[in-house]
Amino acid sequence: MSIIQTQTKYFTFDELILENGEKFGPVTIAYETYGQLNSNQSNAILLLHALTGDAHAAGLHEGEKTSGWWDLMIGPGKAFDTNEYFVICSNVLGGCRGSTGPSSINPRSGKPYALDFPLITIGDMVSCQKRLIDHLGIEQLLTVAGGSMGGMQVLSWLVKYPKTIRSAIPIATTAKHSPQQIAFNEAGRLAIMADPHWNSGNYYEGASPDKGLAVARAIGHITYMSDVSMAEKFGRQKKGVSPGEKFTADFEVEGYLRYRGDNFVKRFDANTYLYITKAIDLFDGFAGKSVQEAFQHVQAKVMVIAFKSDWLYPAYQSQEIVRACKVAGLQTSYCEVDSTYGHDAFLLEIEEESHLIRHFLKKIFYDYEVSDEFTI
Amino acid sequence: MSIIQTQTKYFTFDELILENGEKFGPVTIAYETYGQLNSNQSNAILLLHALTGDAHAAGLHEGEKTSGWWDLMIGPGKAFDTNEYFVICSNVLGGCRGSTGPSSINPRSGKPYALDFPLITIGDMVSCQKRLIDHLGIEQLLTVAGGSMGGMQVLSWLVKYPKTIRSAIPIATTAKHSPQQIAFNEAGRLAIMADPHWNSGNYYEGASPDKGLAVARAIGHITYMSDVSMAEKFGRQKKGVSPGEKFTADFEVEGYLRYRGDNFVKRFDANTYLYITKAIDLFDGFAGKSVQEAFQHVQAKVMVIAFKSDWLYPAYQSQEIVRACKVAGLQTSYCEVDSTYGHDAFLLEIEEESHLIRHFLKKIFYDYEVSDEFTI
Repeated sequence: MSIIQTQTKYFTFDELILENGEKFGPVTIAYETYGQLNSNQSNAILLLHALTGDAHAAGLHEGEKTSGWWDLMIGPGKAFDTNEYFVICSNVLGGCRGSTGPSSINPRSGKPYALDFPLITIGDMVSCQKRLIDHLGIEQLLTVAGGSMGGMQVLSWLVKYPKTIRSAIPIATTAKHSPQQIAFNEAGRLAIMADPHWNSGNYYEGASPDKGLAVARAIGHITYMSDVSMAEKFGRQKKGVSPGEKFTADFEVEGYLRYRGDNFVKRFDANTYLYITKAIDLFDGFAGKSVQEAFQHVQAKVMVIAFKSDWLYPAYQSQEIVRACKVAGLQTSYCEVDSTYGHDAFLLEIEEESHLIRHFLKKIFYDYEVSDEFTI
Repeated sequence: MSIIQTQTKYFTFDELILENGEKFGPVTIAYETYGQLNSNQSNAILLLHALTGDAHAAGLHEGEKTSGWWDLMIGPGKAFDTNEYFVICSNVLGGCRGSTGPSSINPRSGKPYALDFPLITIGDMVSCQKRLIDHLGIEQLLTVAGGSMGGMQVLSWLVKYPKTIRSAIPIATTAKHSPQQIAFNEAGRLAIMADPHWNSGNYYEGASPDKGLAVARAIGHITYMSDVSMAEKFGRQKKGVSPGEKFTADFEVEGYLRYRGDNFVKRFDANTYLYITKAIDLFDGFAGKSVQEAFQHVQAKVMVIAFKSDWLYPAYQSQEIVRACKVAGLQTSYCEVDSTYGHDAFLLEIEEESHLIRHFLKKIFYDYEVSDEFTI
């Protein structure tokens, strides 16, 4: 458990121009920061969360017992070393953990947006992050890093704000969802929309579509683990159930899916699940352009990380990102970490991931500091 | 399309003793036969269907346009050559396509069984098939063959009625579900039970839990295909949807899942989905014994077939069956067919599968006929 106490802050701005050209606002972005920004603002790192993550990446909130989602990687002496770096994490646009999303109040109606919320993109999330960085007075980021959907935001940063980042670390991600990845998301969306409590998105005054959302989460959990990690964690262990009961959880793995589903619905909004999975499915890492054109202004160094047992975001998709970066002339390194954890590895396979990131950041940071001194 | 016209027949018997010791009955088994039983009854083949299959394995029913589920493999000159063999296929106990299942009328209440239907096993399905074979006056089967859950029934035949079968062909299957396989089934069950129309199984007088069952089917379909076959079939092709609509099917793959789901609910019963997936999850191919003990009376020759891109029933699980058979001293051959179709390959990868089965059957059939002549 982390010993750092952290808290979520909020930044609100009036208007955002979405990638589809529409104007939208006001927008509030929930964010947290860890460590101290140095005097020449050269040590700022932006971390980008996955589908169900939030701004609370590290440390403990007062009175809570659960650390932030990437706490193992963020803190003094850790991969994102808060003795060295100033680390920022924000909840994405469309989210339900403090940033403006479909569950937020639409100031024009006084009611939650529900499906009046616009169809946002990964790029729109990144636009909000850029506004936050500007607000914090940071001109350039040492790196942007994230796994899964976080990695998609990393790619979007490369295309949209190439001069604002000195390096980029896309982890366990893809430049485009395959039909299989789209299909898993669609099955989750169908489960939510099949729940009569969903009510075309208008459920904020009554019961929520918890059962549908829990099914979506169960599907997700299966894809986040691997065949091997499930076998190691659960095997065919049975739960002690009453013999007369039918279709309860007979196996430990069934109990796990149910338990995690029940917990998930307490902290997550079903409409946010729809909007964010749709943004993921529609994401195109090269913005419909050739990689040379998409990455033409990029000078950032890139480190791509994949995990061998990750079958949701298989290594070949990371290799395609590496190939694209190299075709565009970017200085790119690639590491495929041996792990049995499946897609969850980016959250769990800490030791090797930490080494990779620590060395990469030191090199970028040191090179910059040296060149800066020479300039002076 | 097949040119054979076929029809479903029905066999009813009073009582079955289930593997859990309970008595259950009456039981009706829907079945079809193709080809002619020869005079010494040495050419009978029993085919065993998968989760959503039925007795209609081959040919066309009068007035219908869709051939049986394994029509590509059954008929004159095909793998299961009806010029040579007498082919039988029956709907499993617990099914909803003519055999007694949870949607059948419970004679004690005059209403559908719903969840009063007993928790049946793969072995119980096989017991019913044995009764059918007895009814047809067949003492020994040339082979039992089937893919997926059909392959589990093949394994159960080896353990329960070793002397009744001269050979066995388990295809794309496993001796035991892994936690990942259980988890996919459980996600489908949760989707069904989350549908308020499910109503604890009592929906036969009102609306059915179609939306929940369609989600279960969507999850299933993803696991039946492969990453590659989905990429080849759908890519990221978009459907033409109205721009204002949200969370409709944007991609072809989404339209496919929805279309297949809508069709599936017309022909399948949600409670059957629960009962059969549970039987699959609880199946233990060696009946809790050592393989030597489980297979001690088996003299059948075994051919195990797996498909390279099948990630739902990965080849390593077929290899475990081969190892078990060899440890028990059975004459066993193994073939891993190259295919990109995923688990669906056992229904689609016809050419190589046909060759394998045709040669295997000829050898068994010819050896038997020869030895029979010598005996005479």
